[in-house]
Amino acid sequence: MRMAFDEALRSYHEGGVPVGAVMVENGKVIASGHNRRVQDGDPVSHGEMDCIRRAGRRNRYDDVTLYTTLSPCMMCSGAIVQFGIKRVVVGENRNFNGNIGFLEKNGVEVLLLDDTECATLMARFIGERPDLWDEDVAGND
Amino acid sequence: MRMAFDEALRSYHEGGVPVGAVMVENGKVIASGHNRRVQDGDPVSHGEMDCIRRAGRRNRYDDVTLYTTLSPCMMCSGAIVQFGIKRVVVGENRNFNGNIGFLEKNGVEVLLLDDTECATLMARFIGERPDLWDEDVAGND
Repeated sequence: MRMAFDEALRSYHEGGVPVGAVMVENGKVIASGHNRRVQDGDPVSHGEMDCIRRAGRRNRYDDVTLYTTLSPCMMCSGAIVQFGIKRVVVGENRNFNGNIGFLEKNGVEVLLLDDTECATLMARFIGERPDLWDEDVAGND
Repeated sequence: MRMAFDEALRSYHEGGVPVGAVMVENGKVIASGHNRRVQDGDPVSHGEMDCIRRAGRRNRYDDVTLYTTLSPCMMCSGAIVQFGIKRVVVGENRNFNGNIGFLEKNGVEVLLLDDTECATLMARFIGERPDLWDEDVAGND
């Protein structure tokens, strides 16, 4: 989660949405990523999506754990379920409720850390850029 | 749907997964795209995702209709719901059941065309490249 937070912080300093993600397989980091809506003008590059993309082509995700600083939106939750990612560690859901129930209902094991550092960064961003945050989730928060 | 099929056919001729999508707003084409798993080595670039990406940054999708040649997977369905796309026209769901029920449950109007041309191309691809098709949906079909 430290690495995922660092990705989020990097995005914040780039002027982007501060959500970061890391993919781990059998204790080894496969990929990391962060939200790139601003940086790449890409609305589908949420932190989790960017991380899954950077992990490249794979047949299966059975032994993968995805760490994300913020509770996953419906797009990212759908991707997790579609690709069969079995475990997700969530930094916090204070700033965005996300879809932990949907993930669990679809057989994904979710660990919610309620991490203060993740929550503080996200709250600061939402306070500073409510317009950008609203755009990133198209008002569906 | 003709344009979406042409995108799918283009992907097929590029050696990729033949799913295409087009975004229309108030009768005007905003963007089109196709699956780019093979072409860009990008697992999250399903046809619908590529199309949403190419439409660029937007605040809202209220007046958008998304055309897709194949019934949307859970990732693409999640993206449609998260971004608040209200209408989806689906070419066919013979080759992949997708998540039309999920979309409708979340307030998305879905029109299923059961288009023979879309279905024939997809069936041909799955017959020729079952390995690539399995990879694209990580076995969740």
